[in-house]
Amino acid sequence: MTRWKITVEYNGSEYAGWQMQDGQPTIQGELEKALKAFCQQDIRVHGAGRTDAGVHAKGQIAHFDLDYGDRPLDGFELSKALNAHLRPQPISVLHAEEVSEEFHARFSAKEKIYSYFIVNRRSFLALDQGRAWLIKTPLDTVAMQEAANHLIGEHDFTTFRATECQAKSPVRTLNELRIEAREYDQHGGLAVLIHARAQSFLHHQVRNIAGTLTLVGESKWSPDDVKKALEAKDRKAGGPTAPADGLYLIKIDYPEG
Amino acid sequence: MTRWKITVEYNGSEYAGWQMQDGQPTIQGELEKALKAFCQQDIRVHGAGRTDAGVHAKGQIAHFDLDYGDRPLDGFELSKALNAHLRPQPISVLHAEEVSEEFHARFSAKEKIYSYFIVNRRSFLALDQGRAWLIKTPLDTVAMQEAANHLIGEHDFTTFRATECQAKSPVRTLNELRIEAREYDQHGGLAVLIHARAQSFLHHQVRNIAGTLTLVGESKWSPDDVKKALEAKDRKAGGPTAPADGLYLIKIDYPEG
Repeated sequence: MTRWKITVEYNGSEYAGWQMQDGQPTIQGELEKALKAFCQQDIRVHGAGRTDAGVHAKGQIAHFDLDYGDRPLDGFELSKALNAHLRPQPISVLHAEEVSEEFHARFSAKEKIYSYFIVNRRSFLALDQGRAWLIKTPLDTVAMQEAANHLIGEHDFTTFRATECQAKSPVRTLNELRIEAREYDQHGGLAVLIHARAQSFLHHQVRNIAGTLTLVGESKWSPDDVKKALEAKDRKAGGPTAPADGLYLIKIDYPEG
Repeated sequence: MTRWKITVEYNGSEYAGWQMQDGQPTIQGELEKALKAFCQQDIRVHGAGRTDAGVHAKGQIAHFDLDYGDRPLDGFELSKALNAHLRPQPISVLHAEEVSEEFHARFSAKEKIYSYFIVNRRSFLALDQGRAWLIKTPLDTVAMQEAANHLIGEHDFTTFRATECQAKSPVRTLNELRIEAREYDQHGGLAVLIHARAQSFLHHQVRNIAGTLTLVGESKWSPDDVKKALEAKDRKAGGPTAPADGLYLIKIDYPEG
């Protein structure tokens, strides 16, 4: 029995999220189907981040245990075989490697990086439909960063977690919350990225933060209002949940690298 | 009668190219339909670059003449109205402005910029399906640039133009042909971009150059082989035509800015 760690890229638009759900296509479900087609076994795939419906990944991590008998199997062969079964779905295994039995995609994670992608312009999206959130009001990204600074560090994030979130504690530590703005088109359209880094996140935490920071960007809230919302420890005090389309699970780091 | 210049972004995947064709969806055709829905007139839209089926644009330019009677019409109102009729198609008018009667999207163009987007890795594409060319063999981008340097300047590009190309002269001047490589994923995947700048291009010129430079990147050809191919002035001496998926019409410059 070998434990495998895989890195997976996907376009979440057509899926009901990472986690298995009866009768709906999910990333976990499609990976398990591909594994079954490869080795005729029912194998459970454990993901590091349970991304919601419509959320994308550049680097989701998952693990599973595979008994491949006495035949040798290397990571490239395994990822190639899984990809052959996944095609033409927009799910691609970028890498597969053997890990120790102690490795757990979710519990061993040291840090996760999500990025939220906003396109800030008046015209609707042609090339990035379903891959970004379009905001038409010009965003003040300096004010957004000022607001974001209130959220960095260890806090009770009750204001920014989904009411159905099942985590025992609402306390999380944001190691980074950085706003990046760059040219998106030749007529003043901007790509505004919100980069968030933490050991773990609450349900909808990044999307709720993105929705709230956007209120600051639109000058409907001051940066200080975000501080007050955080201190209220009440979801109703926070801004709206940003759409899934703009969220990307970028990378997950583990102690051994 | 007012002449309008518009900037258009589109995902070309679902279209038979820019130019009107009976019974097939084209960018020009959809823009003309949107104009008709807006003002109930049959108006011809003239594009700067007749992109092929599957080719994308970040900044296509087009012009048309509109008689809007005595009512005032500004560029923002016009682009908003066209976009309302274009939705939800992946065609977006980014900008519209009044220009003089002498302006012609194609003939007034001073310079066009195309970029060809290759993803260089073994795993297939999840997020950029239909938007990039996947090359699995590791590309030597230094050799590609060396080969590209032989093509910069004024040359007879017969080797790199489609046999059906209708341009009178095969001579064109490439002002820039630059290879850019950057990280695409966390497992060594690279984005390799070929940026080409010229006053005008021959039919399939950028795709034929991309296909040929890729042979150099894969070490099947030497940079010098590209020089010999150019000098042969024979399409059969060139490399294959790269797929439309990876080609983007980025920007078109005009004398007045």
